[in-house]
Amino acid sequence: MAIVLGANQYGKAEIRLLRVSRGTPPTSPAPYTAGQHDITDLNVSITLTGDMAAAHLTGDNAAVLTTDAQKNTVFAFAGEHGVGQIEDFGLLLARHFVDTHPTVSRARVSITQYPWDRIGATGHSFARSGGEVRTATVTCDGTGTYEGTGTYEGTGAWAVSGLEDLTVLNSAGSEFWGFVKDRYTTLPETTDRILATAVSARWRHASADAGASAKHWGESYAEARRLLLEAFADTYSYSLQQTLYEMGRRVLAARPEIAEMRLALPNKHHYAVDLSGFGVDSDNEVFYASDRPYGLIEGTVTRDDAPPPGLAW
Amino acid sequence: MAIVLGANQYGKAEIRLLRVSRGTPPTSPAPYTAGQHDITDLNVSITLTGDMAAAHLTGDNAAVLTTDAQKNTVFAFAGEHGVGQIEDFGLLLARHFVDTHPTVSRARVSITQYPWDRIGATGHSFARSGGEVRTATVTCDGTGTYEGTGTYEGTGAWAVSGLEDLTVLNSAGSEFWGFVKDRYTTLPETTDRILATAVSARWRHASADAGASAKHWGESYAEARRLLLEAFADTYSYSLQQTLYEMGRRVLAARPEIAEMRLALPNKHHYAVDLSGFGVDSDNEVFYASDRPYGLIEGTVTRDDAPPPGLAW
Amino acid sequence: MAIVLGANQYGKAEIRLLRVSRGTPPTSPAPYTAGQHDITDLNVSITLTGDMAAAHLTGDNAAVLTTDAQKNTVFAFAGEHGVGQIEDFGLLLARHFVDTHPTVSRARVSITQYPWDRIGATGHSFARSGGEVRTATVTCDGTGTYEGTGTYEGTGAWAVSGLEDLTVLNSAGSEFWGFVKDRYTTLPETTDRILATAVSARWRHASADAGASAKHWGESYAEARRLLLEAFADTYSYSLQQTLYEMGRRVLAARPEIAEMRLALPNKHHYAVDLSGFGVDSDNEVFYASDRPYGLIEGTVTRDDAPPPGLAW
Amino acid sequence: MAIVLGANQYGKAEIRLLRVSRGTPPTSPAPYTAGQHDITDLNVSITLTGDMAAAHLTGDNAAVLTTDAQKNTVFAFAGEHGVGQIEDFGLLLARHFVDTHPTVSRARVSITQYPWDRIGATGHSFARSGGEVRTATVTCDGTGTYEGTGTYEGTGAWAVSGLEDLTVLNSAGSEFWGFVKDRYTTLPETTDRILATAVSARWRHASADAGASAKHWGESYAEARRLLLEAFADTYSYSLQQTLYEMGRRVLAARPEIAEMRLALPNKHHYAVDLSGFGVDSDNEVFYASDRPYGLIEGTVTRDDAPPPGLAW
Repeated sequence: MAIVLGANQYGKAEIRLLRVSRGTPPTSPAPYTAGQHDITDLNVSITLTGDMAAAHLTGDNAAVLTTDAQKNTVFAFAGEHGVGQIEDFGLLLARHFVDTHPTVSRARVSITQYPWDRIGATGHSFARSGGEVRTATVTCDGTGTYEGTGTYEGTGAWAVSGLEDLTVLNSAGSEFWGFVKDRYTTLPETTDRILATAVSARWRHASADAGASAKHWGESYAEARRLLLEAFADTYSYSLQQTLYEMGRRVLAARPEIAEMRLALPNKHHYAVDLSGFGVDSDNEVFYASDRPYGLIEGTVTRDDAPPPGLAW
Repeated sequence: MAIVLGANQYGKAEIRLLRVSRGTPPTSPAPYTAGQHDITDLNVSITLTGDMAAAHLTGDNAAVLTTDAQKNTVFAFAGEHGVGQIEDFGLLLARHFVDTHPTVSRARVSITQYPWDRIGATGHSFARSGGEVRTATVTCDGTGTYEGTGTYEGTGAWAVSGLEDLTVLNSAGSEFWGFVKDRYTTLPETTDRILATAVSARWRHASADAGASAKHWGESYAEARRLLLEAFADTYSYSLQQTLYEMGRRVLAARPEIAEMRLALPNKHHYAVDLSGFGVDSDNEVFYASDRPYGLIEGTVTRDDAPPPGLAW
Repeated sequence: MAIVLGANQYGKAEIRLLRVSRGTPPTSPAPYTAGQHDITDLNVSITLTGDMAAAHLTGDNAAVLTTDAQKNTVFAFAGEHGVGQIEDFGLLLARHFVDTHPTVSRARVSITQYPWDRIGATGHSFARSGGEVRTATVTCDGTGTYEGTGTYEGTGAWAVSGLEDLTVLNSAGSEFWGFVKDRYTTLPETTDRILATAVSARWRHASADAGASAKHWGESYAEARRLLLEAFADTYSYSLQQTLYEMGRRVLAARPEIAEMRLALPNKHHYAVDLSGFGVDSDNEVFYASDRPYGLIEGTVTRDDAPPPGLAW
Repeated sequence: MAIVLGANQYGKAEIRLLRVSRGTPPTSPAPYTAGQHDITDLNVSITLTGDMAAAHLTGDNAAVLTTDAQKNTVFAFAGEHGVGQIEDFGLLLARHFVDTHPTVSRARVSITQYPWDRIGATGHSFARSGGEVRTATVTCDGTGTYEGTGTYEGTGAWAVSGLEDLTVLNSAGSEFWGFVKDRYTTLPETTDRILATAVSARWRHASADAGASAKHWGESYAEARRLLLEAFADTYSYSLQQTLYEMGRRVLAARPEIAEMRLALPNKHHYAVDLSGFGVDSDNEVFYASDRPYGLIEGTVTRDDAPPPGLAW
């Protein structure tokens, strides 16, 4: 028997980056009227995998690209190339790490994008919008061909897009009954309940070119988000599982570039409060929103001919 | 010398309440098309003050209304009266506690409202919107006259409205220079910086009737919010203090029902990253968003003839 | 009627500082055996008040000491003077700001200290201990006399010490009955309940010299903490209010340097689960720990001859 | 092509449970002296996997054990059997779900235990201790044999123990140099830095009987925790990777019942502040504790003859 090093990875997490793209340059002297700006607000995390045994076993760092340099790379690439769609930015970064560092055999870049809306008439004023964030996780293993034009051939790159914390609620159209009754089951069956969740969804693209072939990642994201909301609202639900499946199905049915959906839906319980003891006649109108415990429903919806996931997840 | 009880208060905090108002009742059997619903999603906290010395000194609870009963009251009132505007709901509750419990000399009700948008075409589907929340804190001391018609005469009721976590950013139109230079000052002066903050604002109404006299609390809130955003976007800023003052001034100038604004603006620092060492020519385009430490600017903007604040804050 | 600037303040918040004090210097070359180290881990926030009207009204920053310089001052003072007790470090800083900046009429320094325990035998290895943190808030208005020897004469300095998040629980010795019964009261009376809270306490020293006269702030803190725990454990409680009062009383009775205690005690409810329906005979042994809502009990215990609080709070 | 349901699971998350074990029963009438109590404070999450296709595809819940019943089961088992070691409690629960519900093919129970220390002399007073928590994740697939005596034969049960948020710091004995220098590398090499992390560790037991054979899970946990701390403190470190490996190695070398360790160590960066510009001579004594971004080092240390992990993770 020997004790050995197993799987390992490392990187810089939570690099908070704001990229400003300026239109017409400001005239001087101040105060000036700036041109229209665009902003991209990101949280970027890098994970590198490779032959790092020496660092673990003897503290020899000859194969280690510092996490500080990883951070600098993110800032430099944002300056040099801009950010654009987060899937593209992630692929650019991941490809860089595997291509330029022989000791790195796999690079994964996870990005969270915070959405902003324009406010006012200045062209450079913004307010954070929505509770949800857009996410992307891309992985490169250094194989395959990259033409520098957004085209990834072969199997060396994978892209997963997603969103987090999209909180939704149906105040009608949800039932829950017909479940198993064991000796610990006391929940009453109901034909009218609140159904609420905070959607966490990730979807794997059929290829890292998929977004590009669907014109752009942005459209793919916007449509997936729209379809998720639509499916949640439209589905008359007999269980959160049913709603989950329909949300995934709806996206896959409409978006050929997406091969697989993974959803995690916490059941944000709302319990009807019985007010009859207080002389108040309230029929399912007043609810207590409970924090913990909560149900958690997780599931995958996929195509039966989806390409193998490789290193996507 | 003796040891004595000083100021004290108690109550139930963070009562999470969802109120559903149903329009046309659903037809049966399921699946049905429900009528249009409205939802109100609240976090309610109660604070009572009165002669509670016995509870503290001897554990005699004869004057103590349990915090559990306070919670029940919130649910029961939501069922019986509906919620409507949170200022009204708070006043109804606060008035109840001081009017029906002789040992309670002051009741304060603080409410946070989470905003939701409609989604889909069902009339009963919603998504949480925005990062910000609407707030109200109302206080009653049991004096004054309440007609039960939304009219509070005299001095026995106070209303403060507000919002939290309204995150905004200007990517131009902000300078910072001309400040004190002491031996510890190393910050360079700048004529072009990112100005970002998460607005926390509370505004005191001239009277607890003020909202009503401005037609309704909802309009007052929507306009105050709009004016805050507009002032943030429009103000060419030489300091966050200047922006703060203008935000308060703008609201007071346009809304006669509001007597005083209190603002707390954390300076969400974005530091330009110097990319010249990486051969990247980036002029104030790439920023690192820092978490801590942060500047915190707090200030009050008021009318010089504002009525005394009484117990409002 | 005119719109005017009211009370205002500003400063740098959450300056995260680790101060290492080294004993015997390390010998070279590495690997060396370092001498014994001590560490002080702080979160420092500065608030300055003064005549800052110009910054608000016109963006003229001539009176503004940048929050960046405030941060630098904290680091520089930690290097030059060390930190020692947080009350002393705060007084040194607050005094500096009011003494060296004519536009600053009041400086408040709030410090949170994270506790660490030693681990291992190296003398330089530590593990974070406890859930609670130690706090101090000191205020100087520039009057009074400071000899530079830890002595503050006159009224120009105030010191408040405290702790946060000291979570405690009694599984016996707590009853709750005899309370008001109104139409919304459904809580059963009990002679045996769980009493749990997360203690938030702040205590005002009779003078900013008080800690020094009690030998040192550290002893004063350690004793106050010990007495709070002892009072919580010892008090047979008929209400959380009674426990609160006894906690404050116990500290004041034993520590003459402390003039006033302010306590905020959330009632961390633990509800007994009725297992009889499952054929399980459990007499108050299984509890559900609820997050929200929760009772919140706040109170002050003071001496009837306490000096006036001035700017302490 | 068809759209199909993939992997899925569901369950109740974050069941907050306090179990009180009473020694000598209290005498009446109150106030009484209770016997010595022990408390166990848990956060339990259940995940069930099985044939739940109908629930997803048609909303037919005939195979669904409600998450509410899962919660009830946790409370009932805590009452009937007590909790004891969390690995045992988890195995009891997981075994129950797979044994009594034919539609459940795999049950996983994840438990977080919050540690408490005794305070005072009452025998029933406690204070929360430490920042860290103890964890266990156990999985049963319904195969294998369980004698009801803590013995699991065969392959049907797996146990992973662990801890989270054990925050540690070395103020000496850490270097970092000899790393890759690419064009984005600006980090200076250092022979004296702060090394700080919040240890997240999970370790897989060679068998679900392993804890029992090492006398009890509690001893196994206490020793693993002790060895992790000892290794962190003792290791003269040239990289956090080296410290990680040594932490895992030390545990495996001393604890035969443990087959594999997985560690995740965020590098809690402390940057030395250069005070020379302020005329302060400080040699690595004042540090700024940064929140984000941070390095994240993850690695596995294992035996080369470890049994296959099965469903453990």
